[in-house]
Amino acid sequence: MTDILPSYIGGSWWTPAAADGTDVRDASTGEIVTRVSTDGLDLAEALEYGRAVGQASIGALTFHERAVLLKKFALALTERKDELYALSARTGATTADSWVDIDGGIGVLFSYSGKARRELPNTRVYVDGPVEPLSKDGSFLGRHIYTRLPGVAVQINAFNFPVWGSLEKFAPAFLAGMPTLVKPATPTGYLAEAFVRILVESGLLPEGSLQLVSGSVPTLFDHLRLGDIVGFTGSASTAEKLRQHDCVQTGGVRFTSETDSINASILGPDAVAGTPEFDAYVRQLVTEMTSKAGQKCTAIRRAIVPAASVDSLIEAVQARITERVVVGDPRAEGVTMGPLASIAQRDDVVAQVDRLKAAGGQVVVGSTDAPAVTHADGSVGAAPDGAFLMPLMLRFADASTDAVHEIEAFGPVTSLLSYDTVAEASALVARGGGSLVTSIATHDPATALELMSGISAYNGRVLLLDRDDARSSTGHGSALPNLVHGGPGRAGGGEELGGIRAVLHHMQRTAVQGSPQMLTALTGVWHAGATANGGGQHPFRKSLAELRIGDQIVSATRAVTLDDIETFAHFTGDTFYAHMDEDAAAANPFFPGRVAHGYLLVSWAAGLFVDPEPGPVLANYGLENLRFITPVSPDDVIRVTLTAKQITPRETDEYGEVRWDAVIHNQHDEIVATYDVLTLVAKELASA
Amino acid sequence: MTDILPSYIGGSWWTPAAADGTDVRDASTGEIVTRVSTDGLDLAEALEYGRAVGQASIGALTFHERAVLLKKFALALTERKDELYALSARTGATTADSWVDIDGGIGVLFSYSGKARRELPNTRVYVDGPVEPLSKDGSFLGRHIYTRLPGVAVQINAFNFPVWGSLEKFAPAFLAGMPTLVKPATPTGYLAEAFVRILVESGLLPEGSLQLVSGSVPTLFDHLRLGDIVGFTGSASTAEKLRQHDCVQTGGVRFTSETDSINASILGPDAVAGTPEFDAYVRQLVTEMTSKAGQKCTAIRRAIVPAASVDSLIEAVQARITERVVVGDPRAEGVTMGPLASIAQRDDVVAQVDRLKAAGGQVVVGSTDAPAVTHADGSVGAAPDGAFLMPLMLRFADASTDAVHEIEAFGPVTSLLSYDTVAEASALVARGGGSLVTSIATHDPATALELMSGISAYNGRVLLLDRDDARSSTGHGSALPNLVHGGPGRAGGGEELGGIRAVLHHMQRTAVQGSPQMLTALTGVWHAGATANGGGQHPFRKSLAELRIGDQIVSATRAVTLDDIETFAHFTGDTFYAHMDEDAAAANPFFPGRVAHGYLLVSWAAGLFVDPEPGPVLANYGLENLRFITPVSPDDVIRVTLTAKQITPRETDEYGEVRWDAVIHNQHDEIVATYDVLTLVAKELASA
Repeated sequence: MTDILPSYIGGSWWTPAAADGTDVRDASTGEIVTRVSTDGLDLAEALEYGRAVGQASIGALTFHERAVLLKKFALALTERKDELYALSARTGATTADSWVDIDGGIGVLFSYSGKARRELPNTRVYVDGPVEPLSKDGSFLGRHIYTRLPGVAVQINAFNFPVWGSLEKFAPAFLAGMPTLVKPATPTGYLAEAFVRILVESGLLPEGSLQLVSGSVPTLFDHLRLGDIVGFTGSASTAEKLRQHDCVQTGGVRFTSETDSINASILGPDAVAGTPEFDAYVRQLVTEMTSKAGQKCTAIRRAIVPAASVDSLIEAVQARITERVVVGDPRAEGVTMGPLASIAQRDDVVAQVDRLKAAGGQVVVGSTDAPAVTHADGSVGAAPDGAFLMPLMLRFADASTDAVHEIEAFGPVTSLLSYDTVAEASALVARGGGSLVTSIATHDPATALELMSGISAYNGRVLLLDRDDARSSTGHGSALPNLVHGGPGRAGGGEELGGIRAVLHHMQRTAVQGSPQMLTALTGVWHAGATANGGGQHPFRKSLAELRIGDQIVSATRAVTLDDIETFAHFTGDTFYAHMDEDAAAANPFFPGRVAHGYLLVSWAAGLFVDPEPGPVLANYGLENLRFITPVSPDDVIRVTLTAKQITPRETDEYGEVRWDAVIHNQHDEIVATYDVLTLVAKELASA
Repeated sequence: MTDILPSYIGGSWWTPAAADGTDVRDASTGEIVTRVSTDGLDLAEALEYGRAVGQASIGALTFHERAVLLKKFALALTERKDELYALSARTGATTADSWVDIDGGIGVLFSYSGKARRELPNTRVYVDGPVEPLSKDGSFLGRHIYTRLPGVAVQINAFNFPVWGSLEKFAPAFLAGMPTLVKPATPTGYLAEAFVRILVESGLLPEGSLQLVSGSVPTLFDHLRLGDIVGFTGSASTAEKLRQHDCVQTGGVRFTSETDSINASILGPDAVAGTPEFDAYVRQLVTEMTSKAGQKCTAIRRAIVPAASVDSLIEAVQARITERVVVGDPRAEGVTMGPLASIAQRDDVVAQVDRLKAAGGQVVVGSTDAPAVTHADGSVGAAPDGAFLMPLMLRFADASTDAVHEIEAFGPVTSLLSYDTVAEASALVARGGGSLVTSIATHDPATALELMSGISAYNGRVLLLDRDDARSSTGHGSALPNLVHGGPGRAGGGEELGGIRAVLHHMQRTAVQGSPQMLTALTGVWHAGATANGGGQHPFRKSLAELRIGDQIVSATRAVTLDDIETFAHFTGDTFYAHMDEDAAAANPFFPGRVAHGYLLVSWAAGLFVDPEPGPVLANYGLENLRFITPVSPDDVIRVTLTAKQITPRETDEYGEVRWDAVIHNQHDEIVATYDVLTLVAKELASA
């Protein structure tokens, strides 16, 4: 495996002609794992291939078809994940660390696959927000749609999560319809190569949908243009340099970044030693210091605690580290914390710790001395070629010292700051200049509210930790597929994940104005005022194969009598005075006198539009946006108009969802009620 | 009025000590209107004042309270709008142009006031998206919230719409809770000063919520920091320079820009001369060339027409200009197009036209010669001190010429390009590198769809023009408060307006994780699993003054019999087979046999939870998110749990909205159905 690590470009594996490249070493032992080089690689061609072939092949699929593929990718990776775990250990990751990276990455695929099928239409255009009426006569409407960007989604990833860090960007890009080009970090790029290889070998990838560049890409940005998007993860200083490129500044290339930030964790004033919150805080802090050897953008860099709790906190952290942390080669039994990713990385962390010490930081837990560690064979001793470091906590007597809010030691390192008032704690969080995440341990809602009002605008995520969620909490450091990951300011200003939100970041929102007919054609959603097909067969007799947007039934009419209202009241038990007592009803500001129950009207409407015999309509599974507009008095006459509004066939079932536009009118053609009826409808008529 | 134009800073009017400044002249006559200078103005202090005083005073208000103020601002401006129209004429605006600027600006305030009260909660935190369950036991949930940015919203505006351009940014910033600092463009800053003065004199502005700088601000960006936001409107080149500042690049200051773009208007292949679409296209094109003398970021710079229609188009445009356009001083009767904003602006347009000509543009309508114009006194003749220009159309034989897609003549100028295929037309639009708006005149949905798939990612807005909406269309150039305004790439990459979307651009989205109890406290919305108050008085007997989130009723139980199902079926007419025919129902994939109607269940649930006597609950005005989860068979027993979920008192009514969380369970504690019940509830109990 000490050959040059291949790239996957233009639909095939590529290695440079020359055999020299940068050495990549095992984090624990210093052995050479592989070498990387991009000497002679044509990036411009790779990007053009993505824009042409990748856009075409993914663009041929609907959102749901893409979602089904994501699940298949996840299954293909699951089947071969042992290979990934084995390689992951070489990066310094413990099994628990690898689980976050590998199973976590696969989990993102599963999660997005499910979410997309639940929350996206089975088309290629996403409709955002309600219809905006732009003319009184309804002939001119506005709507917002999202369509995919026409370029390539370029990932520039950090070394710490080579699988998760790539898949969490790939999933939303793929769903949006964009091809991806992955540029992993050199120290762990061989693990990214391995997962890409599994996907390529699965044969499931649409042509051009995924490319991989193993090695450096100094000219990459020269080839980017409007319609491409860059998702960068790494240091704030690198992000700054990349963002300066003309293609971003004036060329319209979207650049989103998720950078290491000086995240904080606040111990509430109520969370004194002995409370469940104190214990949960300490557990979480030690976990964040040691998991992935502290090499996480989301790790806690600043522990902000009440002055009175400083001593007990140091003691508790020290005790837990002594009890739980075993540093060593992740392939050795019992090791709970591995090395950093490389010697260079370890040296950088030590250098940053020295800067923090020079700025007043006093080491209160651990040290930067080379530790004795557990080797793969179980022996304990020095490891001069491994990138090992012990967990380390610094205390700053002066919490306002600039350095502690600015310098990041990207390893198992945290700094302890104390506060006297909650407002002070908030102000300290803000000093970080924007963070990915802050956690707060308190069981007092008032404290949580006060802290939140001060810190929420400075954070992409906030975790509220207390006795109620301490056991179920996923932890300060965990980015989850259904929550936004990213933060303002120093954290890069980007947003990743967060469910469908991240899909939309790969698309352009466009306001569209036009007639109902044109908006219907464009969105695949029927708009009131567009042509409706009211003749012929009852639409409930049509399978998805036959049903069309705009198929409509205008029901017969039915008169409501006082008797009906009373019958319904006594049958349901709903004897609300507006239905039963003329004087009291008339005194109500909204009713002319006794009125029919809203539920009577929608129940009758169902009776009016339903086609009772077995057929393709399988069930009414729900109803949305019901509004009662005009009250119905005794002797009023109602009718209902039901129009097929949106059709969503399911990829993996024999049926799909049909959303019907329902409008109840009275005898004066006034609108009585509007709502959407949700049904499940078979794809094909059952054979006799 | 030739004194120095005042700024409004720190809560009072400010003018520099020295009396010299830059002259600002009447666009038609060249008379000096005023002078501007910021010599000695302390911008850092102004921004600090906004962050401290403005944030505090607006922050004390809820979204709805802010919305009510917006309406009052609109009324105050309406009352004195004659003053604004008089000044507006001096900028070169005709009455129609002024209507867009002044009434358009006031209209944005009205629109946002209404939209905010309909679409935002009456609190200070906006909740985004659904609950994200993060643990199986429901003790750990995720939610996304938006909270306002903690700084100042700085506007840097263009000269063309001094009122609208400012109010369209002010309204969403104010709703979000951010104070604004307006920096108008010098040539028309006196009109911005006038509207600010009216608002100040109205006494309605919360302290620190609005500041105005009349004059240049070269050091402004040095004083900005994380939490501030800049909304820039103007040229792409200025935007580029401003964006380079460290406060944006690394300081986390949000910078959104809306820049002049090379917008396009496509005549569809079907829209040949003689069709209503051709006529609508010509009318719209001439309007966009002449309104505001073509000084609109949204004006049509490229008319893209089928080769076969080029000649008829030129002829029709020429004819309409001859018939309709009278250039002159806007104060003269009959004038339909005024001067440009200044001589400098006019000279710049002529220079850009010369560049376009040098690149192959042939003038086919109009010329850059100084025109004879109508003076204020009605006489016609030369106007050497006025910034007049005639409408002008250039034709490019080679549509792929770079210049026509890159050079903007910001005046009554458009270029004509021809195409052979629809794909070519799309490609030409994309050549603009990102536009605010493109319009398409076609009556053929297939053409519209094909064009949209090629151009939507390159546009912030697309208008589909045809015979159905030609009369009601608001036009290519009009940015509307309920639709996003902005576009990708050259158009600046920003988004303004678009209803609540623009409010959210002034806020930070934060993912929050915590227990149901904590999320309830934080959002003001009850989350399942949080404490519920089930004892004591029926919640329907509580006015908004007494009702609290979490107030709950758990109903009695009721058994469903086959008789009930049949009764309901015959009463409503809903004899769907799943309710009536055991064998057919059992053959359905979702039902165990005959089941109760969903509408029966929600009707009964109302009977179970309602408190029938007159009281504070006035009406059930709707229902949302109803989902039927578990079917109910004969002899099943149901009960309903109703919990106050969200309370939204109305600012200008004696009642408000209460959203109730409704869950129907069966005798096995399985969830049968979930939904939200929407009611109107009085603020106070009626006195006896």
